[in-house]
Amino acid sequence: MAQQHLDPTDSTAGSSPELPTALEQGGAPTADALACYLRGQATEFLRALRLHRETGGSGHGTEESVDAARALRRSARRISGSVHTFRPLLEEAWSAELCPELAWLSGTLAREHACQACLERLLLALHRLSGTAVLPAQPTEEVPGGRAVDRGNLTVGAAKAGALLERQLTLARTRAHSTALQALGSARFHAVADKVAVLASDVPLTPAAATADLTPLAAAARERLTDAVAALPLVTAGSPYNAEALVHGLSPDPSPHPQDAPWHQVRLLLRLHRYAREVLDGADSPVIARLLAAGQALDRHRDASEAAAAAASAARTPRIAPATAYALGVLHADQRHEVEAARFAFQQSWLKQAVGAG
Amino acid sequence: MAQQHLDPTDSTAGSSPELPTALEQGGAPTADALACYLRGQATEFLRALRLHRETGGSGHGTEESVDAARALRRSARRISGSVHTFRPLLEEAWSAELCPELAWLSGTLAREHACQACLERLLLALHRLSGTAVLPAQPTEEVPGGRAVDRGNLTVGAAKAGALLERQLTLARTRAHSTALQALGSARFHAVADKVAVLASDVPLTPAAATADLTPLAAAARERLTDAVAALPLVTAGSPYNAEALVHGLSPDPSPHPQDAPWHQVRLLLRLHRYAREVLDGADSPVIARLLAAGQALDRHRDASEAAAAAASAARTPRIAPATAYALGVLHADQRHEVEAARFAFQQSWLKQAVGAG
Repeated sequence: MAQQHLDPTDSTAGSSPELPTALEQGGAPTADALACYLRGQATEFLRALRLHRETGGSGHGTEESVDAARALRRSARRISGSVHTFRPLLEEAWSAELCPELAWLSGTLAREHACQACLERLLLALHRLSGTAVLPAQPTEEVPGGRAVDRGNLTVGAAKAGALLERQLTLARTRAHSTALQALGSARFHAVADKVAVLASDVPLTPAAATADLTPLAAAARERLTDAVAALPLVTAGSPYNAEALVHGLSPDPSPHPQDAPWHQVRLLLRLHRYAREVLDGADSPVIARLLAAGQALDRHRDASEAAAAAASAARTPRIAPATAYALGVLHADQRHEVEAARFAFQQSWLKQAVGAG
Repeated sequence: MAQQHLDPTDSTAGSSPELPTALEQGGAPTADALACYLRGQATEFLRALRLHRETGGSGHGTEESVDAARALRRSARRISGSVHTFRPLLEEAWSAELCPELAWLSGTLAREHACQACLERLLLALHRLSGTAVLPAQPTEEVPGGRAVDRGNLTVGAAKAGALLERQLTLARTRAHSTALQALGSARFHAVADKVAVLASDVPLTPAAATADLTPLAAAARERLTDAVAALPLVTAGSPYNAEALVHGLSPDPSPHPQDAPWHQVRLLLRLHRYAREVLDGADSPVIARLLAAGQALDRHRDASEAAAAAASAARTPRIAPATAYALGVLHADQRHEVEAARFAFQQSWLKQAVGAG
C-alpha cells in the first residue's frame, strides 16, 4: 500500500544505468504514497463502518461491534493525522472541513471505550491492593456518618470503593454509548462518511503535489515531536522514585496535575509522527514497532492519569464512608505512582530507540 | 582506639626480620581490640549519661538532652552489638545478663525519638502532597457524618489529617518520654549503668580470649548478613516501579506488610556487621562509610514502613471525615511508595559496594 523507503546505501551500491529510475521511484517518497495511504485508510473506514452496522452497533458491545468501533476510530485517526501532517499537498478547503469532523468522530467514539478501560484498570488495582475480588455481590448503599474504620473495614472500604467506581463509570460509559449511537445516526456523521467514501477513490491533491517530496513535511512532524520531548523533564523521569507524579496530589487546585499535559501532548505528536512514517515506510517497518513501544508507555501514562482523576472524583461523592474514602485515596496515589512509572518507561524507551533518526 | 587492620599484601611486601611481630600486632585482630572498643563505648555511655542528667533530661527535649539521649542509645547499641558478635570471648553469665538489659534500654530510649521522627516525616509528606503547610492554626474537632468532599475539602482533608496525626503521635511521644524517664530513674537502669561503669575499666574476657583471633567471629557476623541479603527479593527491588510495596495495602490482614520483616532483619544484621568492623578497623575506616550508606537506605525503609502504618492506623480513628480518610489513604500509599524507593536504593548501594569483601 505504501512505498518502501530504500536504504540510500543500497541504492548507491550498484552503478547500473537504472540507478536514477530507482532513486526516482523509491528514494524520495512522493504524493502518490500519501494518496495510496489515504485511499487505503478510507477503504478501512468504510469496511469498519459496514461491520459496525452488521454486528448491531446499536446494542451494548458484542466483541465484533467493539472491534468494528476500534477499527473505525483507528482509520479516522490515521486519515485526520496524515491529512494534518501533509496538508500543503491537499486541497485546503477540503482539509479544513474534514479534519475537525474526523477529530469529533474519533473523540466521540473513544469515550465509551475509555470509560470501560478506566473501570477495568481501577478494579484491577483495587484487587491487587486488597488481595480480594472487589466486585461486590450486591452493591450496598453508602451510610451517612461513617463509623470506626477498623481493620476489617479496610476491605469493606475497597469493596465499597469498587462498587462506587463501577456505578459512576458504568453510568458514564452508558452515556458515552448513547452519545456515540446518536453521532453515528446524525446528518453530521453521514456527511463525514460521504467524504471518506469519495476519498477511497479520489484523493484531492493540489496541482503542486505531483512533483512534491513528502520528506520535508514528515521531518517537520518529527521535529515537532523531538522539540516537545526535549521540553519534558526527562532527567527527573529517568531517576526512579522521584515522587514527582504525586506532588500536589492533595492540592485544592481543580486541575492539580498540569504536569501531565506536556506528556499528553507528546503522545499526540508521537502518533502523528508514527502515521507519517506509515505513509513513508509502510505499517510493517521496524521503525513503526519501536515508535509503538514508546507510544504504549504514553498510553499507559494517559490511562493512569485518568484513572487517578476518576478515583479522586469518586472521593468527592457526598456521604461516602471514611473507609471508602481511604481506599480511594490509596487508589489515587497508586495510579499517580503508575503515572510516574509510565514516564520512567517512556524515558527508557526514548533513550533506547533512535527515534530522532527514524 | 581500635587496632588498624593491615592489608596482608602490605605486611608481606617487606622481608625484614620484624615481619612476624608486625603480623602479630596488626595482622590478626585480637581480643585486645575488642576490650579497647568496649572500654571506649562504655566511657561514651557514661559521658552521655552525665550530659543527659546535666541538660535536664527530665524536661521535654532541649537540643542538648536530645543529643545526649542519642549518644546514650548509640553506645548502648554498640556495646550490646559487639558483645553479641564476640560473645565466645566474653564471660558467658555476664554477657547473658547485660545484652537484654542494654536492648531494653536502647529500645525504651528510642521510642520517643521514633514518634517525633515519624510525625515530622508524615507532616513533611502532607506538605509536599498538598502544596501548603498542614499544621493547622487551631486543631478542630472532627465532625461525625462527613459531608461532600469537594475540591476545597481535599486541602481541608490534608490539614485535618495533619492535625489528627499530630494529636496521636504527640500523645505517643509524650507517653514514650514518660516511660523513658521512668526507665532512667529505675533500679533496673542503675544496675545497667553500674555494669557499664565497671566495663569502662574492666572487660570480662575469658581466659581463652587472650590467644583468640577476632576474624572468624566477625566473618560469621558478615555471613549472617550476606545470607539474609541473599534471601531478599533484590531482583524485584532493583526493577524500578515494581509496585510490590503497596501490594495488599488494603488487605484485612492486621499486619498487611510481612514483606517488610526480612528488610528490617537485614537492617539489624548490617548494623551488627558494621559494629564488628568498627572493632576490627576503627570507626573511620572507608568500609564503615560504605556500610553506613547502605544502612541509611534501610533506616529510610523502616521509617517509611512505620509512617505508612501510622497513617493507616490514624484512618481507623472513629468518626473522621471522608476528606480526612482520603488524605490518610494518599499518605499511606505515598509512604509505601517510599518503602519501595528505599528498597531500590538499598539494592543499588549493595551492588555498588563490595560489602562481601569488607
